[in-house]
Amino acid sequence: MPKVPVDFAGPSYFGGKNDQLVLCAGKAGDIHVWDRESATLLHHIRAQALGSDLTCIAWNHAVEPFMFATGSHDGAVRIWTTPRPQRTHPASSEAHSQVTTTSNTPMDSSPALYDGAYTGSPVPQQGGANASDRPDESDKACACVTYPKTLCIAVVGVGLVGGEFINQLLNFPAPNPSRIVSLSSSKATLFSPDGLPINTSGWKDELAQSSRIPDFQVLCRDLCALVKSGQDVVLVDNTSSNVVAAIYPQFLKAGIHVITPNKKAFSAELSLYESILSASLESGARFLNEATVGAGLPIISTLKDLVATGDKIVKIEGVFSGTMSYIFNEFSTAKEGGPPFSSVVSIARSKGYTEPHPADDLNGADVARKLTILSRYIPSLRIALKDGYQSVITKSLVPPELEGTDTGDEFIRRLPEFDARFDKMRADAFKRGKVLRFAGVVDVNAKVIKADLEEYNVSHPFVTALGGSDNIVMFHTERYGARPLVIQGAGAGAAVTAMGVMSDLLKLI
Amino acid sequence: MPKVPVDFAGPSYFGGKNDQLVLCAGKAGDIHVWDRESATLLHHIRAQALGSDLTCIAWNHAVEPFMFATGSHDGAVRIWTTPRPQRTHPASSEAHSQVTTTSNTPMDSSPALYDGAYTGSPVPQQGGANASDRPDESDKACACVTYPKTLCIAVVGVGLVGGEFINQLLNFPAPNPSRIVSLSSSKATLFSPDGLPINTSGWKDELAQSSRIPDFQVLCRDLCALVKSGQDVVLVDNTSSNVVAAIYPQFLKAGIHVITPNKKAFSAELSLYESILSASLESGARFLNEATVGAGLPIISTLKDLVATGDKIVKIEGVFSGTMSYIFNEFSTAKEGGPPFSSVVSIARSKGYTEPHPADDLNGADVARKLTILSRYIPSLRIALKDGYQSVITKSLVPPELEGTDTGDEFIRRLPEFDARFDKMRADAFKRGKVLRFAGVVDVNAKVIKADLEEYNVSHPFVTALGGSDNIVMFHTERYGARPLVIQGAGAGAAVTAMGVMSDLLKLI
Repeated sequence: MPKVPVDFAGPSYFGGKNDQLVLCAGKAGDIHVWDRESATLLHHIRAQALGSDLTCIAWNHAVEPFMFATGSHDGAVRIWTTPRPQRTHPASSEAHSQVTTTSNTPMDSSPALYDGAYTGSPVPQQGGANASDRPDESDKACACVTYPKTLCIAVVGVGLVGGEFINQLLNFPAPNPSRIVSLSSSKATLFSPDGLPINTSGWKDELAQSSRIPDFQVLCRDLCALVKSGQDVVLVDNTSSNVVAAIYPQFLKAGIHVITPNKKAFSAELSLYESILSASLESGARFLNEATVGAGLPIISTLKDLVATGDKIVKIEGVFSGTMSYIFNEFSTAKEGGPPFSSVVSIARSKGYTEPHPADDLNGADVARKLTILSRYIPSLRIALKDGYQSVITKSLVPPELEGTDTGDEFIRRLPEFDARFDKMRADAFKRGKVLRFAGVVDVNAKVIKADLEEYNVSHPFVTALGGSDNIVMFHTERYGARPLVIQGAGAGAAVTAMGVMSDLLKLI
Repeated sequence: MPKVPVDFAGPSYFGGKNDQLVLCAGKAGDIHVWDRESATLLHHIRAQALGSDLTCIAWNHAVEPFMFATGSHDGAVRIWTTPRPQRTHPASSEAHSQVTTTSNTPMDSSPALYDGAYTGSPVPQQGGANASDRPDESDKACACVTYPKTLCIAVVGVGLVGGEFINQLLNFPAPNPSRIVSLSSSKATLFSPDGLPINTSGWKDELAQSSRIPDFQVLCRDLCALVKSGQDVVLVDNTSSNVVAAIYPQFLKAGIHVITPNKKAFSAELSLYESILSASLESGARFLNEATVGAGLPIISTLKDLVATGDKIVKIEGVFSGTMSYIFNEFSTAKEGGPPFSSVVSIARSKGYTEPHPADDLNGADVARKLTILSRYIPSLRIALKDGYQSVITKSLVPPELEGTDTGDEFIRRLPEFDARFDKMRADAFKRGKVLRFAGVVDVNAKVIKADLEEYNVSHPFVTALGGSDNIVMFHTERYGARPLVIQGAGAGAAVTAMGVMSDLLKLI
């Protein structure tokens, strides 16, 4: 225990099996549990873990051998018990009807929950990683994992990514520091300041049955009322909507954090970006967007760490579009020839790798948006792109003749007319010993930011390491001089994108 | 501004150039700055950003057009001014002699400082990323980046990594939320609860001149006294000492966070690991060790995120030792033959890539330690390695005849006697179309954790993508099914290791 004197407040209490434990609270709010016979201090829970002074403490002798409650100055009641390897969503747990916050009990004891403040698996612990998981020692085990704050989460967009995110959140191992206070699709919305009574199997129906129409002004007002000490509010935008992106500053100003895989806000004109930053600066609310580049891959967090720790970014280059990655991995290889461009695009579309209208991928805008997002984290490029992604030098692979084609079907039907052009590019590159890749480059010193069809040597990682619809990003920096820092993996898909959103959320805990 | 009613506390004050601004504090501690003529609210700084109620507020009309001070309930005085693109270390700034904490002023306005809570470059902003950097608009710019807490940092170990870390920390862009309260080498120590008055050029001399002998019991007691609300204390262990590792539980129990690139603690016997976790759980202090695997590469944080967001790890495989990476990248390639093993080792040693005694690398223990650290983040493997790295199936490349060789020089002198053995392994692999790599594998389902000399196809990323002394790690998971998540780059070296330590520190801000 800490080698500091402790002022004990009030009487001590006997408890545990056969009253073999002694419980007492320190004046500062610490909780001490001793073994009655040996006088050994078995547990010392620091006031810091509670976040507030204790005002009362009491054993529950009725329910089970080891359970006590504390009340604290902030009005919270916390139930402390032996850790159980079970998974309970607080909102659905009867035991929670008596407590004021959702982050209390029943609690999973996995010690890793504290290491990094959030790790642990959403499945029940198997085997027991420490003594406290073993029933025979349960009397000696005491662990109340309390998070320093509760997160109230409003989810906008409940499609593939949104749905996966909601499920990941509902499956978070207890104690779950978050509660979902709002869900919104394009048609309906739900709101409950105390958390929606939903579970993974029922939330879609609940939302579908709501007669409330989504209104972001109302949502902002409702969420604003929840911002208070010890309780953070987060807007999770899982749409790709410009409309939602445009109102981030309003939410941020109100002290509401924004987490999103939506590229629109950070890749639009500089003015929106600056109003997001100044709103965030003003209120202290955070804007996190890991999943806007490379989905769940740690690309933005790595770039932030490189910059924040004083490394100098020299160049970032990568294959940032899963669609473009797939198309060129199939179309251009180290071998001569290959399938026609149109057939590769057609197959990609049938596999769901492209947007319904493939021109929305082939125009390069998605890559330009990602480059915009990345470049704005680099101090010297922060204001380089006044018009956002539209300021990025971008090669469109949409044949000029097909610009404005109304439907994806018509685009696919007519694309074979242009196969010869793509064939020639591939053949020319092959003659030079090169392979085609649609890559994004941020050259910091030259201040060149471009999304272009590039030629790479057959030994280049973009040729040798890529497969499927992988993203790959290479950070060339002062520290990673001769050999870049490389991150590679699936850069799209609901599960991995939702993971990127979740990992941002975990940064707030 | 937030759409909530504000109770204003006390009178308003005129200030700014020609008294054109009006300043008032809200009861809850918010600060409002209006334009006198238009009555526009120019700035609203939420109480949340200050962390405490305001008790007084006053303009400084003497020094410059826009500067005011606030006093708050926690005793802190904060000076607010227009952001300046300058880099000042608080401890060396005269302006700081009047303020109680180091996290106040002068402040860098870079809005990115809030996005992610810590980004921004330690170099002065060039060109101005937002309006507030432009002098002509400076009266309208108001930004006091206050961090929710101060970090008091005690650094143990001031060698290559420690020195680089200290320099990164001293160069952190203002406002720097951290202050170094203690430095310890193996011979001397410095301690000052208010922060050591050191800078990048002088700290080594200061430490060398100290006559105080390091004593971890004294350090723990001294640091413990600094743990309080709004002030976190961090032990940064930049040694590779078993002795320091063994006392982590004591520091953690006292509420002191531990951050380290030292592999010893997490890769030792399970009992030390468990006492670290339970100490962390008890006090809420965190244990962070990103730099123990892959230096600055985001390997542990990625693994934690994968687990925490509910992905299932199937297998982790990688080249985890920069030394082994260099040796086998040189020794075994897709081409037949190559240099003798002993000459590659000898060159690696002369380049500083190996320990002074190369057997300390070739015995595989370093890789086994890293595998231990990683596997303990995987729930089903948490207790798999009772004896830590010694429970890992490890292939030693030290010829049995050279076990116990006293000096590195003698080892290098005798190693050529065994070149034929290594030649044969390489030739045998080549006949099978394979290349040798010393890899680490954590096979979760099979519960096999091994550090071994493996054979890979010439098209495998460990063959095609690796170079120099790169580390590479592939996460095969349920979500990253067909194609693994890959992270690659320099996994050793003072600058990148210190970056890994710094990025852990940033997680505490």
